[in-house]
Formats: sequence, C-alpha cells, structure tokens
Amino acid sequence: MKGPVVETKRAKAAQVALDDKFIELEGERFAGLHLLLELWGAQRLDDEDFIEATLKQAAQAARATILDIRLHKFLSSGGVTGVALLAESHISIHTWPERAYAAVDIFMCGDCDAYQAVPPLEQAFAPVRFEISENRRGRLKVQALTP
Amino acid sequence: MKGPVVETKRAKAAQVALDDKFIELEGERFAGLHLLLELWGAQRLDDEDFIEATLKQAAQAARATILDIRLHKFLSSGGVTGVALLAESHISIHTWPERAYAAVDIFMCGDCDAYQAVPPLEQAFAPVRFEISENRRGRLKVQALTP
Repeated sequence: MKGPVVETKRAKAAQVALDDKFIELEGERFAGLHLLLELWGAQRLDDEDFIEATLKQAAQAARATILDIRLHKFLSSGGVTGVALLAESHISIHTWPERAYAAVDIFMCGDCDAYQAVPPLEQAFAPVRFEISENRRGRLKVQALTP
Repeated sequence: MKGPVVETKRAKAAQVALDDKFIELEGERFAGLHLLLELWGAQRLDDEDFIEATLKQAAQAARATILDIRLHKFLSSGGVTGVALLAESHISIHTWPERAYAAVDIFMCGDCDAYQAVPPLEQAFAPVRFEISENRRGRLKVQALTP
C-alpha cells in the first residue's frame, strides 16, 4: 500500500466537528478520516454472522450511526464482502480466508472517531500483522485557520 | 490526501487475474486496486437517482458484478451516501453538495479494471478539480515472481 503506514494507534487528538460536518484536526480542515486497514494472519474471515456483529461493534465504538449493513458470502472461497453504511460514511470489509487476509476501510466524518473503530476489529480477527494508513478526505486549502 | 496523487488516468497495463483472484500487475501481486477519488466543484451531488444510475454505469464499465446498491439522502444538507456492493469489492460515494465535494472510492479485485469505472463518474459529476490516489490492497511480499 502506498502512503504512510503506522503500526500503532494514534492517541486521541483534538478533533472538532464543525457546523458543516467537516473536521478540524491538527490545523487542517477536511471532510473525514478514511483509514485503510490491512489484516494478515487473521481469523474467522469466513464467518458471516461474526463479521456482521464485528462491524456493528466497530461502528458503535466510533459513535457512528448505522443506516444499513449488507454482507455477501462467496460459497466458492468462503470469502465475505460487506459494508456498514453509516450516517457518517461507511465501514467495509473484504476477506480472503485462503490467504488469511482482510481489507477493511473505515471512513468517518462528523463527530465520530474512526480510530475508535479499530480495536474491535483487531480483537475480533486477531491478525498476526496489522497495518493502518490514514487518508484525510476532502482537504480544504485553507489560507489561515487561526484569526 | 496522503500518498501520490495522479491527475491523469493511467493507460491500461497488463493486469492479470490469478486463480486465487489476486492480481499480478507491474511485477507485484496483490488483492485489488483501491482508488480514492476527490471530486471538487462537482454537480448533481444531491440527486439520489442520478447517483445510483452513475454507480451502476461505473460498475458496468469496469466489468464488475453488482450484488446490491444502497443509498441514503440526508434531508438536512441534501448530501447522499451510498455504496454499490460488488462481487469484486465495492464502489462508495459520499457527497457534500454545500461544498460541491464528493469522496468516491473504487475497490476492485479479480478480473475487473478499477480505472475503467472512473470516466463515467467524471462525466456524470463534471468536477472542476479531480484527483485520484491508487492503493494496492493486500500486497504480497513475493520473493520472486519470475521463475
């Protein structure tokens, strides 16, 4: 994956949701945080019910509102593809049990903390190797945030 | 957005879908291409039916199989959040009409070409500024791809 990879979770920063639902964080203003998670050596990647329950836990941990959850299991491989549609964007998961690999992405705007969705996913799938890359979507070219 | 930003679309490279649905491209083996699109100065971002039709066109252009499409419109802002769940992963869109901004992501594995989903989105929403960043999800640490 291109872009910076962090192996540890970030401490909670002073994230502020603005009136237009854009976020102000570390001097930047943007629409939302989009985390791409790579899980290797992960477990239970063919268990559709478990994956659905885990998506719910992850959304709740981030204080997101679930609008809908859709999952599909591929009988040929046991892989599961799924998405939780949120009032604050989405969480998606795609699994390759034959590779013990899952690709997860967490995109959240507004007053949610995307990083809080990570521990439930990590605990549930218990990956041997785990990577996160952070993308700030909708970055505004702000001339001066401070007066 | 962190990571490389390309302003132009890539010419079709020799992308090969392997038996396990991983892709081999430019000497790398990985699960799928995940494109993050930033659309600024975009149009029709509050038109739910139009967005749904555009997601279908984008999926079809990439030769993807749609399993389900779910959209939700926020009456307060006119913003739309939606996802097309694909047999080959997903396309998602989240719009902020008040900012003329949309965040789209296209994640495709297997024998699909994620880049072919881009022109229908670009034509539909006619953004003034348009950025793509490419993420290769599930990159294998291959010691030698050639015999």
